[in-house]
Amino acid sequence: MGKKLVSVVMGSVSDLPIMEEAIKILEELKISFEVVVTSAHRLPEKTSLYALNASSRGIEVIIAGAGHAAHLAGIIAAHSLLPVIGVPIDSSSLNGIDALLSTVQMPPGIPVAAMAIGRSGAKNAALFAAQILANKYPEIKEKINEYRDRMVAELEEKAKVIEEKYS
Amino acid sequence: MGKKLVSVVMGSVSDLPIMEEAIKILEELKISFEVVVTSAHRLPEKTSLYALNASSRGIEVIIAGAGHAAHLAGIIAAHSLLPVIGVPIDSSSLNGIDALLSTVQMPPGIPVAAMAIGRSGAKNAALFAAQILANKYPEIKEKINEYRDRMVAELEEKAKVIEEKYS
Amino acid sequence: MGKKLVSVVMGSVSDLPIMEEAIKILEELKISFEVVVTSAHRLPEKTSLYALNASSRGIEVIIAGAGHAAHLAGIIAAHSLLPVIGVPIDSSSLNGIDALLSTVQMPPGIPVAAMAIGRSGAKNAALFAAQILANKYPEIKEKINEYRDRMVAELEEKAKVIEEKYS
Amino acid sequence: MGKKLVSVVMGSVSDLPIMEEAIKILEELKISFEVVVTSAHRLPEKTSLYALNASSRGIEVIIAGAGHAAHLAGIIAAHSLLPVIGVPIDSSSLNGIDALLSTVQMPPGIPVAAMAIGRSGAKNAALFAAQILANKYPEIKEKINEYRDRMVAELEEKAKVIEEKYS
Amino acid sequence: MGKKLVSVVMGSVSDLPIMEEAIKILEELKISFEVVVTSAHRLPEKTSLYALNASSRGIEVIIAGAGHAAHLAGIIAAHSLLPVIGVPIDSSSLNGIDALLSTVQMPPGIPVAAMAIGRSGAKNAALFAAQILANKYPEIKEKINEYRDRMVAELEEKAKVIEEKYS
Amino acid sequence: MGKKLVSVVMGSVSDLPIMEEAIKILEELKISFEVVVTSAHRLPEKTSLYALNASSRGIEVIIAGAGHAAHLAGIIAAHSLLPVIGVPIDSSSLNGIDALLSTVQMPPGIPVAAMAIGRSGAKNAALFAAQILANKYPEIKEKINEYRDRMVAELEEKAKVIEEKYS
Amino acid sequence: MGKKLVSVVMGSVSDLPIMEEAIKILEELKISFEVVVTSAHRLPEKTSLYALNASSRGIEVIIAGAGHAAHLAGIIAAHSLLPVIGVPIDSSSLNGIDALLSTVQMPPGIPVAAMAIGRSGAKNAALFAAQILANKYPEIKEKINEYRDRMVAELEEKAKVIEEKYS
Amino acid sequence: MGKKLVSVVMGSVSDLPIMEEAIKILEELKISFEVVVTSAHRLPEKTSLYALNASSRGIEVIIAGAGHAAHLAGIIAAHSLLPVIGVPIDSSSLNGIDALLSTVQMPPGIPVAAMAIGRSGAKNAALFAAQILANKYPEIKEKINEYRDRMVAELEEKAKVIEEKYS
Repeated sequence: MGKKLVSVVMGSVSDLPIMEEAIKILEELKISFEVVVTSAHRLPEKTSLYALNASSRGIEVIIAGAGHAAHLAGIIAAHSLLPVIGVPIDSSSLNGIDALLSTVQMPPGIPVAAMAIGRSGAKNAALFAAQILANKYPEIKEKINEYRDRMVAELEEKAKVIEEKYS
Repeated sequence: MGKKLVSVVMGSVSDLPIMEEAIKILEELKISFEVVVTSAHRLPEKTSLYALNASSRGIEVIIAGAGHAAHLAGIIAAHSLLPVIGVPIDSSSLNGIDALLSTVQMPPGIPVAAMAIGRSGAKNAALFAAQILANKYPEIKEKINEYRDRMVAELEEKAKVIEEKYS
Repeated sequence: MGKKLVSVVMGSVSDLPIMEEAIKILEELKISFEVVVTSAHRLPEKTSLYALNASSRGIEVIIAGAGHAAHLAGIIAAHSLLPVIGVPIDSSSLNGIDALLSTVQMPPGIPVAAMAIGRSGAKNAALFAAQILANKYPEIKEKINEYRDRMVAELEEKAKVIEEKYS
Repeated sequence: MGKKLVSVVMGSVSDLPIMEEAIKILEELKISFEVVVTSAHRLPEKTSLYALNASSRGIEVIIAGAGHAAHLAGIIAAHSLLPVIGVPIDSSSLNGIDALLSTVQMPPGIPVAAMAIGRSGAKNAALFAAQILANKYPEIKEKINEYRDRMVAELEEKAKVIEEKYS
Repeated sequence: MGKKLVSVVMGSVSDLPIMEEAIKILEELKISFEVVVTSAHRLPEKTSLYALNASSRGIEVIIAGAGHAAHLAGIIAAHSLLPVIGVPIDSSSLNGIDALLSTVQMPPGIPVAAMAIGRSGAKNAALFAAQILANKYPEIKEKINEYRDRMVAELEEKAKVIEEKYS
Repeated sequence: MGKKLVSVVMGSVSDLPIMEEAIKILEELKISFEVVVTSAHRLPEKTSLYALNASSRGIEVIIAGAGHAAHLAGIIAAHSLLPVIGVPIDSSSLNGIDALLSTVQMPPGIPVAAMAIGRSGAKNAALFAAQILANKYPEIKEKINEYRDRMVAELEEKAKVIEEKYS
Repeated sequence: MGKKLVSVVMGSVSDLPIMEEAIKILEELKISFEVVVTSAHRLPEKTSLYALNASSRGIEVIIAGAGHAAHLAGIIAAHSLLPVIGVPIDSSSLNGIDALLSTVQMPPGIPVAAMAIGRSGAKNAALFAAQILANKYPEIKEKINEYRDRMVAELEEKAKVIEEKYS
Repeated sequence: MGKKLVSVVMGSVSDLPIMEEAIKILEELKISFEVVVTSAHRLPEKTSLYALNASSRGIEVIIAGAGHAAHLAGIIAAHSLLPVIGVPIDSSSLNGIDALLSTVQMPPGIPVAAMAIGRSGAKNAALFAAQILANKYPEIKEKINEYRDRMVAELEEKAKVIEEKYS
């Protein structure tokens, strides 16, 4: 892989199984990425330094996953002009609705792009990062196209099996 | 203004007062845009044609605002590889939680970037669109920087008045 | 079985175990049906073509089950005048409240008939489809009557066992 | 108007302003209807008699609107094989979420077709009733088609005004 | 046991494990009771007859447990002047919030006394029935007093163990 | 009026407009009552003394209305064997859902009978108190019967006007 | 007033009317305080510098009010060992439930003490700050005692008026 | 350990596994504490006596954990001027949202400091108690500093492993 374009950040090591869904998609789309573990609450300096420097290190999109009162994506967005995609993670008893509202209800001025709670959201965060990059890098657009084609073909095949079973 | 880079779509004419928050930001950032009114439910063909052709017309980011069971952003995302930013609009009795969940809880494969419900979300949608474009257009990055500086200066000034009143 | 009157659609192959509750009821009521797997987001063209043609293929009622931000029933309803019954499926971390609101909170103009979340809803969707058809086909009315009689008899029998245990 | 095909029931006289949205649509579609005020709780005998006899009086679809713990649609459905469409009404402090869950979460065996909360739901209930009847009465299908055409034309016209304003 | 004073009703045989919590308390308090299984939706005539006759059979308090859109307690209350205590049961995917709102949000005129969702609520329903009866039957007041004393003694004993462990 | 049988308690003077709905019903049913303002948080001693002595003063049923984290009914129930009816009041920004859950979700051992949020609940609390008393006082049963008859007659009259308007 | 012990921070100038409830209590309790307007998102450096230095400037308790995805209290807590009290403010369409969950659901390691949403919470935040300080400053304990006495006397007086009206 | 400064109270013996998270932190910070089991509902006198006397026994901060309609923290706060920290416990079917609202939505006048639901909240309650005490006891401030350093070091180490795995 070449220059790292995407940064996948998570607020806790226990978020890794969810965020691996994003990692797998980035690998499949051949988009080079880094993984960072930092916490808006426990490592605030690392978090702000990370966010302040991400752009100058060549990062073009940030994906941030966190649970509970998920402040990570918002705090990174406060320190950077890069697009920040937030993945709410279901790690409290409230099924992730706390992380969702903490991520999506950003006040005016500093946007965060919220994805669905959990694995679906992590996967889509990587796809959305790719769609942002595709605006500049035609080869990534190509990769997304191929991904969608594979996804469609796979679904069509499975659909056929079920549809025929009942026809 | 030059080539239209952003498309601001809304599902109903009654969504205009909310979506004007996005429009005002795009104007302030000197980003050329179009406005489209189409409904995933009442104008499905217009919606899919719009989404299928947006990229070839030169659009690079789509902002879609809708209320109730807000399907507009999701359906546009299904027909396009462009990044789609969804603005949930509070137009039912449920304070927009229906529109938020209909927008953000996208299943894996087709991402939508959800913003906050209502005016804050519309404003942030335009800023996020700008941040996506800034990756490719340095002059837009400049404009966002200036916007943040103005926002910060304005807040600092107001903060000073309040802080001094109580010091 | 004769002409297929009901179409059971689902947005993902993983929805089959839930939607089989509808299938079993249709089989029990001797109502001929087809099963279709299509996604409003991953297979939008299949979905709109399916919806546009369902009526001309002889389908009279559509049952559509989907999870997450469940747009399937709404999009089908946008492309057809047939009655569309939506089954919200509990496939995200939010216990199906996202699918329920995405299904039931349709904006004015394009109705979807929402059932309960999950298995109860899938079962009731088939019964409701039968009740719609019964308006035109007296033999289906007869079948529903028999179904209700069986259901009542079965419940009365079980009730008797419990009531006697404590009398 | 000829034979009354639809019965519009409401649980309280204060529900009339909401249910008039259904009434206006039925009038526009030239579908003959009756209006009944009865309460599952305050007039239980009237309610069950009404439901037991609706079919024999020629009614083919029932629309039932109620607020709070809205039991009306469910109780009517328990006493009739006719399709019952429930409209949750926002008449408590909970914005109608109580009426929605009381209407939509029917246990297996006795379906109710839930619409959106409030005016949108009342309007859609009438349209859905028409779609059920259209299966048997081609002239009603025609009326729905015309309604959708008017709705689309009206939206397209308004859309044009907004789109041109910003082009 | 003598005359049956309390009637424990449930809407489904699957509610028995929850309602047994109420039964156990009534047995412990030596209050004679009956158990009835009936459904507001599947056995509406049995339900209304049951409710209409409960008082004349000597029943003085009714406990009604149901899940989903729990209409049972409300419908019984509509047909009787006896106090009806509702127990919302957690049998859908929504953790019982649907049953709670369907039980507690009764419109003005026909009250239902709602208890907590599930086992706690079933237990408390029996205690509350006893408290109602105690107003008329001093021996039941005595039994409740003894029950509270046992409960307190048991808690104090367990409390002591924990408190000493950490002292 | 004779001996005071019902005690209407409220946690704040601002709750009076809601609790007056209960007061009006008690007056209409000719049930003698007292009104007490006390707070579980601001007047805890008054509250526990009140609850400990209510029974010996001749009170037979307690109605307790409170908003926010409504602890009043629960704390009174902890200090008395009298039946306590809780009225959740909508006095915070959360539409009364906080008061409802604080009132209804009582742990096992100490029941509170929760009514609907707000005015409906206050009205029903008085009716439920009357139904409890009716078990012992036949004249109150008579009054409730008359109340229900008036309520039914009034609704039937209003229903007739609406039904005829559309017939 | 002497040394400033409490710092009242708010995330937006529009939060002032709510936070003035805290200010009024601090003035009433003769506790010296400062007011700071800073935003975790728009002024992140000011926020972290403020939090890092608060303790060395002599501040002993921080009260932080914010709306939407309220990150302010959490971010301040991340940069300071002082006790941070969070006031969720109802400034979005979601009635403050977003601000509440963003404030209270802090992940383990960095606590924030959440108060009720809105004015009640702001008032209580000041009282809680005073209770923290009272542990060290006996004169503040005295002031709280006096405050509670006034509050109790005022409530008792109002209670008396209402109680006598109905006696 | 020396004088007991913190009192850890729980409403039920079944809350112990959650509250042990608080206990472990207090032990780690070398803060002496007591454990008390008492219930606002089942042991109201023990609860009020406990609260009235806590301060004179030398307790300086109270941590109170409870589930369902969690009144424990509020009732203790009503009887004491000590800072009371509430831990909502997830022991009903509602995932702890009932306990959270019952704890945090305190009416104005009597504050409770709410922590997150469950284990995270219990842990943070102990840390927050320590932060309150640190205002008076410099050696506790030292212990918190060391705790944060260990927490940060541990997270940094784990972060490094993950970051290197993907670099």
